[in-house]
Amino acid sequence: MLAIPVVAVEPLPGFARSTVDGFAVFAADTYGASDSLPVYLSLAGEVAMGRTPDFSLNRTQAALIHTGGMLPEGADAVVMVETTQNTRPGEIEVMRALAVGENILQPGEDVASGSEVIPAGTLLRSMEIGGLAALGRMTIQVAARPRIAILSSGDEVVSPEQSPQPGQVRDVNSYTLAALVEKEGGSPVLYGIIRDQRTELEQAVQRALTECDAVVITAGSSASTRDLTADVIQTMGQPGVLVHGVNVKPGKPTILGVCGGKAVIGLPGNPVSALVIARIFVVPVIHHLLGMNKSARVAVISARLTLNLASQAGREDWMPVRLLSTARGWEADPIFYKSNLIFSLVRADGLVHIPADANGLAAGELVEVEIL
Amino acid sequence: MLAIPVVAVEPLPGFARSTVDGFAVFAADTYGASDSLPVYLSLAGEVAMGRTPDFSLNRTQAALIHTGGMLPEGADAVVMVETTQNTRPGEIEVMRALAVGENILQPGEDVASGSEVIPAGTLLRSMEIGGLAALGRMTIQVAARPRIAILSSGDEVVSPEQSPQPGQVRDVNSYTLAALVEKEGGSPVLYGIIRDQRTELEQAVQRALTECDAVVITAGSSASTRDLTADVIQTMGQPGVLVHGVNVKPGKPTILGVCGGKAVIGLPGNPVSALVIARIFVVPVIHHLLGMNKSARVAVISARLTLNLASQAGREDWMPVRLLSTARGWEADPIFYKSNLIFSLVRADGLVHIPADANGLAAGELVEVEIL
Repeated sequence: MLAIPVVAVEPLPGFARSTVDGFAVFAADTYGASDSLPVYLSLAGEVAMGRTPDFSLNRTQAALIHTGGMLPEGADAVVMVETTQNTRPGEIEVMRALAVGENILQPGEDVASGSEVIPAGTLLRSMEIGGLAALGRMTIQVAARPRIAILSSGDEVVSPEQSPQPGQVRDVNSYTLAALVEKEGGSPVLYGIIRDQRTELEQAVQRALTECDAVVITAGSSASTRDLTADVIQTMGQPGVLVHGVNVKPGKPTILGVCGGKAVIGLPGNPVSALVIARIFVVPVIHHLLGMNKSARVAVISARLTLNLASQAGREDWMPVRLLSTARGWEADPIFYKSNLIFSLVRADGLVHIPADANGLAAGELVEVEIL
Repeated sequence: MLAIPVVAVEPLPGFARSTVDGFAVFAADTYGASDSLPVYLSLAGEVAMGRTPDFSLNRTQAALIHTGGMLPEGADAVVMVETTQNTRPGEIEVMRALAVGENILQPGEDVASGSEVIPAGTLLRSMEIGGLAALGRMTIQVAARPRIAILSSGDEVVSPEQSPQPGQVRDVNSYTLAALVEKEGGSPVLYGIIRDQRTELEQAVQRALTECDAVVITAGSSASTRDLTADVIQTMGQPGVLVHGVNVKPGKPTILGVCGGKAVIGLPGNPVSALVIARIFVVPVIHHLLGMNKSARVAVISARLTLNLASQAGREDWMPVRLLSTARGWEADPIFYKSNLIFSLVRADGLVHIPADANGLAAGELVEVEIL
């Protein structure tokens, strides 16, 4: 993510270049030329690649030039080799009339000197890297990855290295969220597993708020530990909890808060809910902290639903689907999941969004699948 | 990219868990229960999170249980707290009949022991990372990034650190291609700028073929240097050049070859053509070398064209577009480019594909924009 805009200190291209293999000419000399009435021009020389031509062109002269070659002084158009004939040594026939500037890149045509070519907040893709190389910009300033604290709470949760005893489950959310944060440009900072105990959680959130730019807490799955999370967020600074509960499935028990200018988000403990809600609420926080200059475009694929999907009106639903390639195009096959089962998402290629104002989607309907 | 499949050595979940906050019960005890005719059950205890319950359930008993809690011995359903009443201490009223297994995750419901949960060739997303954590798999074997050699040829090309003299241009392709290769899972190996001279090019390609898994050469932009590239590929091993020239715009002068089992691809020298063609021909080579188990799904966004786009029938066209957000949805605004101008792609959000059997696309038509 570019932090300071890049301004071109020189025009691109830096000189008039040919875009074809052919002959540099004066356009005016080709006036009226055609297959049946060609114009005859004398050869003044050949433009070597990578050098200033060591001659200039006079009227009724032409110079052999290759794609990317520098135009000799005087020339104002290039005729493609395919519309010429080389009948006598030192002479060519031009069989087509040319306009001034034809088959030429003008200096500054790609980039004018002094223009802002890459604004701040731009994600650097392969072409931006190429643009920087073209301008000779070898160093740039990029945004620091925002530090996103990840806390996992729950008395039943143990570290993945441990063998869970009956009643215990391994921590999944710390790792799915860390991978998501990393992919979206953040730097995940793991605070491990916190017991469902007020002072322990308070201390951990306090430390995370001091050390990081935003805090994500996956609550234990029971109602009492979710309430504990909300209580703790409420004490961590103004304004505290803004939203407790969202009408989204999966992910109802979501907590959105701001404490002393930093986002604090309580995610549901179920791995599927945590990941779906993190896409909706944590990813935009990361992009905002990065200074991204336009909203990220979520990658989607249009597909036809294989089944009817019911949904409560007034509730936003996200349904995991598998994409199937068929002769008629992509089909989206819903995966009926329970939000505790992380492998339902492993089987999924994407998510289908059922908006709050819909009662569901019909089989055969064209839907946009957001790629996971 | 996973190299060896992951097989579950234990079931997930490992024990029967509640999916709600409520009471563990015998389903048979709730038969016929309703708001007007509740069933009365005596409270046997509370299931602590993360532990085996220290009691078992007898008929006509219920146990307080939290989401994710382990079912006590005997219980075969969980009634949600919302459909119960706690009228007298030690007793609850159940106001709904339950089926066996209701609100319970059965052991192995997510993953059965011994099942292959992640096949080889799977790109590891956040949910696969989470699935591995859930299984306690702390180490896995991943595919080595294939080494992709990148050679830039052309007498007019200089390194980006240099100030180009008139007639010279900075090397762009080495850097756009390296960024693309890296993003798609390859490891780019840069061989720098090669002069348009047969022995120099031969030696460089020979070395690249020995050291890397595939070779990409961006030819100088003139016809003679493109022919030189094809000639050199032809001498590097059987079968040599397979295709010289493709009916794609931009990117006509593309060379596809295989030398001694390794792909050797000659890309056009123009930066826009090189990047468009690399997406079509180099990226699948990287994915194949990684052992990707399904074809990559290119991210697309549906948008309406703002202008008519003409195209020659029989030729495949790729048009860079900017995406504009409007009240009617996305619009795709074509960027009329010259293939030498890298900043035309910097301005683009995606590419629109005009298939070979079309004469063009009409303004207002819904097109799929492949995100760059």
